[in-house]
Amino acid sequence: MSRLLVRNYSISLDGYGAGPHQDVDNPLGIGGMQLHQWIFATRSFSQMIGAEGGSEGLDDDFFSERESGVGATIMGRNMFGPIRGPWDRSEWRGWWGEDPPFHHEVFVLTHHPHPPIEMEGGTTFYFMDGGIEAALSAAFEAAGDRDVLVGGGAATIRQYLRASLIDEMHLAIVPVLLGSGERLFDDLSPSANKYRCIERVCSPAVTHIRIARALRDDIPR
Amino acid sequence: MSRLLVRNYSISLDGYGAGPHQDVDNPLGIGGMQLHQWIFATRSFSQMIGAEGGSEGLDDDFFSERESGVGATIMGRNMFGPIRGPWDRSEWRGWWGEDPPFHHEVFVLTHHPHPPIEMEGGTTFYFMDGGIEAALSAAFEAAGDRDVLVGGGAATIRQYLRASLIDEMHLAIVPVLLGSGERLFDDLSPSANKYRCIERVCSPAVTHIRIARALRDDIPR
Repeated sequence: MSRLLVRNYSISLDGYGAGPHQDVDNPLGIGGMQLHQWIFATRSFSQMIGAEGGSEGLDDDFFSERESGVGATIMGRNMFGPIRGPWDRSEWRGWWGEDPPFHHEVFVLTHHPHPPIEMEGGTTFYFMDGGIEAALSAAFEAAGDRDVLVGGGAATIRQYLRASLIDEMHLAIVPVLLGSGERLFDDLSPSANKYRCIERVCSPAVTHIRIARALRDDIPR
Repeated sequence: MSRLLVRNYSISLDGYGAGPHQDVDNPLGIGGMQLHQWIFATRSFSQMIGAEGGSEGLDDDFFSERESGVGATIMGRNMFGPIRGPWDRSEWRGWWGEDPPFHHEVFVLTHHPHPPIEMEGGTTFYFMDGGIEAALSAAFEAAGDRDVLVGGGAATIRQYLRASLIDEMHLAIVPVLLGSGERLFDDLSPSANKYRCIERVCSPAVTHIRIARALRDDIPR
């Protein structure tokens, strides 16, 4: 059975998945880049961008598994780009260049309809204005027997968590304080009771946590 | 030079230092007791309550140091008791019985004046209605050359953090989701920039984090 997963999502010690004031110059918000240094230092990241070097170990183990068994991705509209409100004429095609690192169908949650954008390398962005459950159905259909990843941002993950729709989530807690920004965990109850920590390991850089939905049979899909 | 410290303060994975609906029956809020299981399991805790057993190791190392070098404690009024608003006639004397585990002067932040309460074993509760800095001055004076501990709760620690008055803070991140409750870290900027993580170690139960103010000379006291 296909699962809905979150992988390698970094939060600060004070719970933020991105810094404040996200815009085209600061896609991760002020200070948000610090949250991803543990990824940038891995060998898998170097390989992804066609560079040499990078370290092996626990962080690399997690990051190298990012796409394993994944057949589709869901993301929020604010992760797709810096444009807020109705789409403008800038023909924004995502942060990732002409060959984005997804290589499968990507479902972007938005309140504003937009035609699909077909990129190189097998990535197509579909814009879903029918709510999180409709986007999830489309993503599961696209993924076939593979899993679906929620890429982010914080608000999108939170919506799926509140609906108890995420099966398993891997977080990296980064020991920095951002002070403000996009909070991941907020007002989850009662879905908080449905999740249990199934793994917690410290690398030299971060604390990796995996949580999983405990009673998946209780929850209709 | 005396320091202002936080020790053994537990927060959930979603950032709460206590669960929701704190009252006389649930002093730590619904689900909040889970945050302190790592303490209850230690040998030091058993010794504190006059019991046998309990485990040694990292958690015990931290908890056994709770009062080391401490000469005074500050706490919020909501940590002292369940009464909100003006004091009533119940003659509440704290959660801790006639011989509280402080054995020194305790300064309780409140907006409502109250005469001091002298307990057994050297603990006296003083009620401070002049703001956090006045309470801090009184506590430093009482502590002499020893340190001052901020006991909690979340709102009190947050006020001192926002004012960059805390020198060092030890947190235990407990891998549970409470869903809602009393959030510790919220809107800290710009004081967030003044703190650095100086230690992070995982016990089997929790992740211990110590943060310290990086530029104490910049901050007038």
